[in-house]
Amino acid sequence: MRVLIVFCHPEPHSFNGALKATAVAHLEGQGHAVEVSDLYAEGFDPLEGPGHYSRRADPTTFSALTEQRRAHEAGELPAEVAREIARLERAELIILQFPLWWHAQPAMLKGWFDRVMVYGGLYSGSRRYDRGRLRGKRAFCSVTTGSPAPAFTRQGRGGEMASLLWPIHRSLAYLGLAVLPPFVVYGVQGGGLHYEQEAIFRERLEAEKVAWRERLDRLETLSPIPFAGWDDWDEQGILRPEHPLAWRP
Amino acid sequence: MRVLIVFCHPEPHSFNGALKATAVAHLEGQGHAVEVSDLYAEGFDPLEGPGHYSRRADPTTFSALTEQRRAHEAGELPAEVAREIARLERAELIILQFPLWWHAQPAMLKGWFDRVMVYGGLYSGSRRYDRGRLRGKRAFCSVTTGSPAPAFTRQGRGGEMASLLWPIHRSLAYLGLAVLPPFVVYGVQGGGLHYEQEAIFRERLEAEKVAWRERLDRLETLSPIPFAGWDDWDEQGILRPEHPLAWRP
Repeated sequence: MRVLIVFCHPEPHSFNGALKATAVAHLEGQGHAVEVSDLYAEGFDPLEGPGHYSRRADPTTFSALTEQRRAHEAGELPAEVAREIARLERAELIILQFPLWWHAQPAMLKGWFDRVMVYGGLYSGSRRYDRGRLRGKRAFCSVTTGSPAPAFTRQGRGGEMASLLWPIHRSLAYLGLAVLPPFVVYGVQGGGLHYEQEAIFRERLEAEKVAWRERLDRLETLSPIPFAGWDDWDEQGILRPEHPLAWRP
Repeated sequence: MRVLIVFCHPEPHSFNGALKATAVAHLEGQGHAVEVSDLYAEGFDPLEGPGHYSRRADPTTFSALTEQRRAHEAGELPAEVAREIARLERAELIILQFPLWWHAQPAMLKGWFDRVMVYGGLYSGSRRYDRGRLRGKRAFCSVTTGSPAPAFTRQGRGGEMASLLWPIHRSLAYLGLAVLPPFVVYGVQGGGLHYEQEAIFRERLEAEKVAWRERLDRLETLSPIPFAGWDDWDEQGILRPEHPLAWRP
């Protein structure tokens, strides 16, 4: 299996960094081919904007979709965008490794979506959802949080984890990916502590490494999160009334 | 009233740019003081990371929270972060103006949260939610989407708008802000067209400008989105069983 890990953390010695290294070692040890997009280390620019397009479909007014499509069709996508698309195309499984910052992925990973998932290339009006360009591949999030698990339950003050990850899961499904359930490590605290060195955190980390390897071992047993698709929607993109999950107030 | 508009779009002549300009003119015309954080034009850096901290609490391992707190306490926050905090402190009303990209705010605006909302400064473990530092102020999102409105209804393929904005609304409430309902313009299409110049879009834009001014005129009539607070939660941060909205499966 060919695996792409999109790693989003500014500190290699962080808890997230340790989980990334654990996944690389474990998956490679099983004979899988692992590639890593280390967004911070590679200096990925997460800001979509006119500076990335030296030639323009419309030189006067910048629109991301218009310029993405033109650059894709002309074979002139920015080099780091083309690199990430090539990585996605090689991969059969994509793992997004990131900390939850402000109830979402960090800006770096958000910008990876904004820039890499180019209109006309990775999706179009007719190639989305279950007709998406990346269908046949699987993806999931591996996330750490600062607050402990109870805060992210249905009635918890942080908000249910499924609701916080919904915009990301929806985006993955939009591309045609099968979205596996997330792996979440709650309550990762400790500020600037080096997780491999500080004894009180090393114990926690070692336990989570075991859980992480175990999760990686049983990916084949996990069912993707169900999403509706084109056959389920009417012409406006709303669930058909006869759909078993349709509900009208 | 002192208003801060956080404007997040790379193109000043975009639909978002027109809505921003409309709000500035309309609010100033009514005698309000309006300040604009023009994130793209001001070159805001949305990436939290070690490069922003020349002095460090922990020089070997970077943790955002640890370095944010130290820099805040030492009065050494990065200049653009200190500037944004001063703008927030001056404002009574905060408007976030952005396009929905990949089911969320663009990376630029996400990074504004990641970097500006500094730990130890704008929040701490005990100063969050209804005890948050920014309580007494109001905030809301003004958003444009590419897909038309039906896609963002409860059973629509894009996902319900309230669920897509939930991580942002939750973050605003976390800071103590009263969150007003969003103003959403759906189905903003047209690629690189200059919205002020192209006749077919100018008509749509003019109609939305009217709706936008009308919304700005009746902010006082809008109730904030209800959020739970410290009195509603048990020691784990879960709604108390006696809370009217509590529900146990």
